[in-house]
Amino acid sequence: MTAPVTASKVTVLAGGVGAARYLSGLTAVVPPGDVTAIVNTGDDLVLHGLHISPDLDTVTYTLAGAINPETGWGLAGETWSAMEALERYGGETWFRLGDRDLATHMYRTHRLGEGADLATVTAEIARGWGLELRILPMTCDPVATRLTVAGEGEIAFQDYFVRRRHAVPVSGVRFAGVDLAVPGPGVLDAIDDAGTVVIAPSNPIVSIGPVLAVPGVRDRLAARRRSVVAVSPIVAGAALKGPADRLMTELGQDASVVGVARLYRDVAGTLVVDDADGHLAPAVEAEGVRCVVAPTVMSSPEAAAALARVTLR
Amino acid sequence: MTAPVTASKVTVLAGGVGAARYLSGLTAVVPPGDVTAIVNTGDDLVLHGLHISPDLDTVTYTLAGAINPETGWGLAGETWSAMEALERYGGETWFRLGDRDLATHMYRTHRLGEGADLATVTAEIARGWGLELRILPMTCDPVATRLTVAGEGEIAFQDYFVRRRHAVPVSGVRFAGVDLAVPGPGVLDAIDDAGTVVIAPSNPIVSIGPVLAVPGVRDRLAARRRSVVAVSPIVAGAALKGPADRLMTELGQDASVVGVARLYRDVAGTLVVDDADGHLAPAVEAEGVRCVVAPTVMSSPEAAAALARVTLR
Repeated sequence: MTAPVTASKVTVLAGGVGAARYLSGLTAVVPPGDVTAIVNTGDDLVLHGLHISPDLDTVTYTLAGAINPETGWGLAGETWSAMEALERYGGETWFRLGDRDLATHMYRTHRLGEGADLATVTAEIARGWGLELRILPMTCDPVATRLTVAGEGEIAFQDYFVRRRHAVPVSGVRFAGVDLAVPGPGVLDAIDDAGTVVIAPSNPIVSIGPVLAVPGVRDRLAARRRSVVAVSPIVAGAALKGPADRLMTELGQDASVVGVARLYRDVAGTLVVDDADGHLAPAVEAEGVRCVVAPTVMSSPEAAAALARVTLR
Repeated sequence: MTAPVTASKVTVLAGGVGAARYLSGLTAVVPPGDVTAIVNTGDDLVLHGLHISPDLDTVTYTLAGAINPETGWGLAGETWSAMEALERYGGETWFRLGDRDLATHMYRTHRLGEGADLATVTAEIARGWGLELRILPMTCDPVATRLTVAGEGEIAFQDYFVRRRHAVPVSGVRFAGVDLAVPGPGVLDAIDDAGTVVIAPSNPIVSIGPVLAVPGVRDRLAARRRSVVAVSPIVAGAALKGPADRLMTELGQDASVVGVARLYRDVAGTLVVDDADGHLAPAVEAEGVRCVVAPTVMSSPEAAAALARVTLR
């Protein structure tokens, strides 16, 4: 690892897997104590009575080096006794919860029940893993990403993403509750105080979308947009993981780096696009967004660190 | 196994371990479909957001042949990944929940959250284990057994029983919520319709006490007390398991089969006492309760079945 390229603080707007990989690269080139992740909680769900925060956990487990590298979610070396036992009752097993992962949800649910807010509990969990970076939920208030599916009406995010494997067409997305949500403790300050704010290569609609929808976040970013850098999660017209490309198309947007630039142009001054999309740089800049062309596919820790360096330049 | 000794129905008031062993013996000598267990829920707790019903689960797991024979609670061959992982966060690990056991609490919590009542969920769980006997919670309403500890005030049952290993003196017991509790579906009919009602050898204060305190239960038993048979959980002045003897003494009662007879004389016509207490039979009968002397220590399935035959005679 090379020395830190910047001494100033970095704040990252984060969804799940892509953001977690980016943060791994970032904390290899910047002191982790200088990094704050503001994480989407629109995917959160209560299942079996347990409060589950998938994106917070993916970021935490990844930064702890404990993530299952094959799936990108859940813990490495996990066991599945509880899920297998749940099948005896015909219980809800579509959302896979490993035995060790369950402890995280049990702890979170217990502490929330005691009256602790999600930010406090998230910090406690991060501390349990010995993490130095700061992980903030975008809000401690309930926000639920909901998708409108043709012929079915509105369904919950995990119903779409996990149960239906995002294989149904979507005609609308909303973040229920977000209008009343207060930014999590430290969220707005982390945006104001950072030397650089990075919008991680997460799904712009359902991962970054909820974070931007929290009252105050969009305005604070817009006020400092020249030092806000987004990384396109779309490479050569496709999402590397997940349904970002299809969702963008279904919602009438251009599933390309140009479409990403349009989504972010009010809040980000720079968009990093992959070498594969270098020919679209002029079209990105025509949207009023500076375009940086670089390798963005984080196929290794080194590639993630290199991408992090690009975003800080 | 010998043939059934009676064709008529048997209803058993049940706590945890002792009652579960008795029910195992009973279902070896009576068709399980003729047996109804009315089970204490005063020990129920919500922990980590999960609704845990220890006595219901002990009865279910025992009758399913799945109980951990060494502890008398929890599942045989259990794994403990979740509990171990919870230690990372300094979570609440004093109440041990095995990974497979967790599935039961997750299922119960999920179904209760869907609006199913505890009786329905209990039946579903029993069906999941292929049980033919009927397991009824004493009530679907919340009832919480609470104990007054000198110098500390009132504490929850599991705090007393598990966390403090029932090693603190108790000056009072109450069943919070029981006055407003409605008997579970089928509970009063099961008392009325049985050929014999058995009060299992469970703790008379904190296991059978809550069942008797559910409005209607005591009156229905009293109305048919001649065919209600209790088995003393006190043998030679001591509880075979748990704090029944000490609790009785602390609450000013006689920790003997005579004390048990006094607690049950209004609701039970017969008390089965162990051979070791044969000399106290006249004192039991002086309380107006017929006394049957027989081996009551269920050290084997055969002993449990033999005790069941005695109670049905």
